[in-house]
Amino acid sequence: MMKYAIGIDIGGTNTKLGVVDEKGSVVKRHEFKTTDYGSFSTYVEGLLRAIEFVTAATDGQCQGIGIGAPNSNYYTGTIDCAPNLPFGDSAPMVETLRTALGYKHIYITNDANAAAMGEKIYGGGRNLDHFIVITLGTGLGAGIIVDGKLLYGADGLAGELGHVKINANGRVCGCGGRGCLETYCSATGIKRTFLEMVSKYNGQSTIANVPWDELDARVIEDAAKEGDIPALETYKVTGNLLGRALSDFVHFSRPSAIFLFGGPVKSGDLLLEPTRASLEHNLMPIFKGKIKVLPSELPQADAAILGASAMVWHAL
Amino acid sequence: MMKYAIGIDIGGTNTKLGVVDEKGSVVKRHEFKTTDYGSFSTYVEGLLRAIEFVTAATDGQCQGIGIGAPNSNYYTGTIDCAPNLPFGDSAPMVETLRTALGYKHIYITNDANAAAMGEKIYGGGRNLDHFIVITLGTGLGAGIIVDGKLLYGADGLAGELGHVKINANGRVCGCGGRGCLETYCSATGIKRTFLEMVSKYNGQSTIANVPWDELDARVIEDAAKEGDIPALETYKVTGNLLGRALSDFVHFSRPSAIFLFGGPVKSGDLLLEPTRASLEHNLMPIFKGKIKVLPSELPQADAAILGASAMVWHAL
Repeated sequence: MMKYAIGIDIGGTNTKLGVVDEKGSVVKRHEFKTTDYGSFSTYVEGLLRAIEFVTAATDGQCQGIGIGAPNSNYYTGTIDCAPNLPFGDSAPMVETLRTALGYKHIYITNDANAAAMGEKIYGGGRNLDHFIVITLGTGLGAGIIVDGKLLYGADGLAGELGHVKINANGRVCGCGGRGCLETYCSATGIKRTFLEMVSKYNGQSTIANVPWDELDARVIEDAAKEGDIPALETYKVTGNLLGRALSDFVHFSRPSAIFLFGGPVKSGDLLLEPTRASLEHNLMPIFKGKIKVLPSELPQADAAILGASAMVWHAL
Repeated sequence: MMKYAIGIDIGGTNTKLGVVDEKGSVVKRHEFKTTDYGSFSTYVEGLLRAIEFVTAATDGQCQGIGIGAPNSNYYTGTIDCAPNLPFGDSAPMVETLRTALGYKHIYITNDANAAAMGEKIYGGGRNLDHFIVITLGTGLGAGIIVDGKLLYGADGLAGELGHVKINANGRVCGCGGRGCLETYCSATGIKRTFLEMVSKYNGQSTIANVPWDELDARVIEDAAKEGDIPALETYKVTGNLLGRALSDFVHFSRPSAIFLFGGPVKSGDLLLEPTRASLEHNLMPIFKGKIKVLPSELPQADAAILGASAMVWHAL
């Protein structure tokens, strides 16, 4: 009989959830507004109704729940001080769901770790014990697989690779630091780099007049594909910096592959080619030619649900 | 009855070995010149005689052998292409000793990994599952403990933290790269920084006339302790860069502590104080105040033998 796992992706705006079979197919899904709820207890009521809805046709064959959520801690099962969620200082998500639903296997982690677990169970990391998934979005997240397992560190919060320093005293970061990787290598970082390039080329860009609020990595990608010089140079600079950071990560944990996930990766070789070249340039000789940089094999639309559900299969 | 493990430290000049009890006391030791041997097979004959000598009084209670050696691979048990050893492309050290001596537990790794395992079994990492040992010598080595075990990565060669890039297009490194951490943060790096400082201060140093060959981190440390400005600034710069690199490592694996080992650490607060300050400055808020930077608790003279032997206790 087919077995299932529930994957839940909690975001500041929307909550998405689905029932996933062992092969990685989302057999039923649902979505509701996180913002419809003003507290953790009312949110949980809504979430339980949604879980009941998606699990209706699973014949009691659900094995557990995996949750991806910002500021969540795998070790404690809590969501702590998430700025975009009305959950307070510490919301006991795993314990609350366990009490309500009785599942033994309920796990929570951040979205980048969930993406890495999804890659391990359903994606390009199926046969790899050492790899890293980098998610490029508003920021840069990472899930690090070591010996086939997620690296959580002493407190569950390892893998904050968006905040390694790529440029001492560089760009201001939301974390309060300077020169963090995600200020350069993320959808937002691409936008910031593009403005530098427009400045460098004195406005000689076909999209120089697009205002900041309307600029995004996709607009810049389209311009680059039309041959826009500042846009093309933006991707070269981004790949160059990302490749250097990836080389540092290789020197640390020696993965077999690094998977890139997120909107900016859709640009294909525009980002991948300079990233790979920079990685190779910066690796020490014993590692050169051995580390693959690949697009994630997870379908982007379902990646968050798949990744969350993958934690259940990994545990079983 | 007391149990023992053999620790062997293979260096380009000397080979040191000893029998270590479970408490970390070296009960018998021996040393011979690696350079007395011109090939792997003759070296092994000498090593076996030395092992026989140190194990004579152990009443057959030796549990195994741990070996620290450059260019060695834990997974394959070989020493590969070590530039300062006459062992050829790949010397099957573990297999050769197992055939000759019959021990089930024989392990080999590089000296920095051995130091980390020594810290785990005998030193400050006894009760920690996540920590990093950084060895500062001619270069910079690292042993990374994750979930209580050494992080080896996909091919046994993880933890090459001397070659993360601290300064894009910075100092020339022996690996062929530029700006590697060990070109700044190591005994050699300290020397190189001191020359920059002498240049910056136009020779206004009490040791400006010491020639390159006679300069070492100890001479610079002594000058700093006498108030020499370029020497003092050298330690500030070194600690500043080291702390920034350590913060990147924390964002990666979230250790509880980082232990520093080697000659430059004997300078005490001269190096530790700016290192800790820079680490704190560069950490993202969730990690601030939580990561200890400590001198290694292993006695330097016996550290290599202790670290090598620790691999046996860890396996048992």
